[in-house]
Amino acid sequence: MSKVFILGHKNPDTDSICSAIAYAALKKELGVDVEPVRLGSVNAETEYALKQFNAEAPRLIEKAAPEVEKVILVDHNERQQSVDDIDEVSVIEVIDHHRIANFETSDPLYYRAEPVGCTATILNKMYKENGVKVQKDVAGLMLSAIISDSLLFKSPTCTEEDVQAAKELAEIAGVNAEEYGLAMLKAGADLSQTSAAELVSLDSKVFSMGDYQVEVAQVNAVDVNDVLSRKEEVENELNRTVADKKLDLFLFVVTDILNSDSVGIVAGSELESVEKAFNTPLAEDRTIVLKGVVSRKKQIVPVLTNVFQEMTHSK
Amino acid sequence: MSKVFILGHKNPDTDSICSAIAYAALKKELGVDVEPVRLGSVNAETEYALKQFNAEAPRLIEKAAPEVEKVILVDHNERQQSVDDIDEVSVIEVIDHHRIANFETSDPLYYRAEPVGCTATILNKMYKENGVKVQKDVAGLMLSAIISDSLLFKSPTCTEEDVQAAKELAEIAGVNAEEYGLAMLKAGADLSQTSAAELVSLDSKVFSMGDYQVEVAQVNAVDVNDVLSRKEEVENELNRTVADKKLDLFLFVVTDILNSDSVGIVAGSELESVEKAFNTPLAEDRTIVLKGVVSRKKQIVPVLTNVFQEMTHSK
Repeated sequence: MSKVFILGHKNPDTDSICSAIAYAALKKELGVDVEPVRLGSVNAETEYALKQFNAEAPRLIEKAAPEVEKVILVDHNERQQSVDDIDEVSVIEVIDHHRIANFETSDPLYYRAEPVGCTATILNKMYKENGVKVQKDVAGLMLSAIISDSLLFKSPTCTEEDVQAAKELAEIAGVNAEEYGLAMLKAGADLSQTSAAELVSLDSKVFSMGDYQVEVAQVNAVDVNDVLSRKEEVENELNRTVADKKLDLFLFVVTDILNSDSVGIVAGSELESVEKAFNTPLAEDRTIVLKGVVSRKKQIVPVLTNVFQEMTHSK
Repeated sequence: MSKVFILGHKNPDTDSICSAIAYAALKKELGVDVEPVRLGSVNAETEYALKQFNAEAPRLIEKAAPEVEKVILVDHNERQQSVDDIDEVSVIEVIDHHRIANFETSDPLYYRAEPVGCTATILNKMYKENGVKVQKDVAGLMLSAIISDSLLFKSPTCTEEDVQAAKELAEIAGVNAEEYGLAMLKAGADLSQTSAAELVSLDSKVFSMGDYQVEVAQVNAVDVNDVLSRKEEVENELNRTVADKKLDLFLFVVTDILNSDSVGIVAGSELESVEKAFNTPLAEDRTIVLKGVVSRKKQIVPVLTNVFQEMTHSK
């Protein structure tokens, strides 16, 4: 069989990079000719993990079809998150932990999705099912992915299976998961060199909620004051984006990775919706304390969606 | 958690029925409240398997949402093959061995597809992964599913994994796979009571191939003469269908399950295409011997598609 690319999603996070490497290592043990590749630059957190566990970043690609006929997707399945020419190659496997959408094949394939917090947790199972031992450095990378996706086991997306897998992998890697994990998250949460414009766009998604357009961005920080001290600059960026995209609300969330709380900065005309969603008043400076909130997917988008859907219906 | 339905596809075959029962048995062992259900009548082959292994047919349902909020799909994923009100329930798991198409969820789920010949082969793995022993009668049902989908291991869709799983399951069930399998296939291949109109529509699919419309039907028989002796009646049905649906070709395939060969009866204006596809002349009576052909999916549709695509391009 000719070579197969293993790739994570665009704007790759630690899971997309490390799971591509870890699955490639398993496939190679099983005699398959694979190469892990990536679809974007390596962020500071992932860079820390790669260095710690003596790994090279996968090669950056823009297109797959000029080099391979077949690809394996990890950590995503939706077409728009994948390589641009995904339609020109054949997807022979998917290993993922997200919803399935905008995905179709013409032939049967190996598709493995589980509702766990991290792709690496599924890969840890697959190593066992195939009777292959995880190499020491690969275990460290897989552990890094779980810590990243679960925010050191504190995210509500984290399952018992993720915790158990991390425990096993930390032992193989020979590191203390809590200590190493905090250091890795801190490496990724150093926002001192990041401009306000970058902060606001780094990890941001627009959602349709009822008749309203809402953007929610999130950054991790060791000290939220690193960001709050630049609040005015950030607000200017938020207001600019609200005007440009005709948004009803922009919620910018800074998550304190040490205390697992967040602070929100809001812009737009529908600020009351945020107070309603979180049952908390906005402070005079237009910030809002989001106690215990760390997951956009599970703790922010659903409650905001409810509020805007009600507003839409009672119009 | 409230009850969950486990269901196979419409026009259920032995895999859809037996895999629903077998996965329900596993889920119950794991403490989940499930009920296997079916979306259509039980065919003669499946009836034989159920009787042999002391099982009741799953309950027939038309809708899921009035009774449950959650369903698990086995042996299919495409919406149009599933229960009519699939959009009103939440799909929490899929265990399948087909391509993925026309399938979308809003939440992460457990999705397990593998490119093997039968769903039951995947379930056999999942029993092991969960450390649960397959009960004797359930093993018999799973074996029946593999024999049915693989036409007693002779179909090109059959993989080494299917053969291995069948071996293990036959041992648990205490039957000889070859002997039992032949008896089961024969029970399903008794066409003496089936009218010509039923024969032609029992398992028939229309395909767009280039600019041409082609219908391919297939029935299994122990003695192809059971069908060939009624050739005139069958041809009348084929011609009627060609006229009704404005088809360019109707290929009706009778597969000899003992010798793993097939005989085709053709109708329509594009008879030469069949000769070209199989590189075999039509006999004077418009039948064609398809040596070693048993799989519509792998051995008939692809070669016909090639011929009609060429014809379309050279028009």
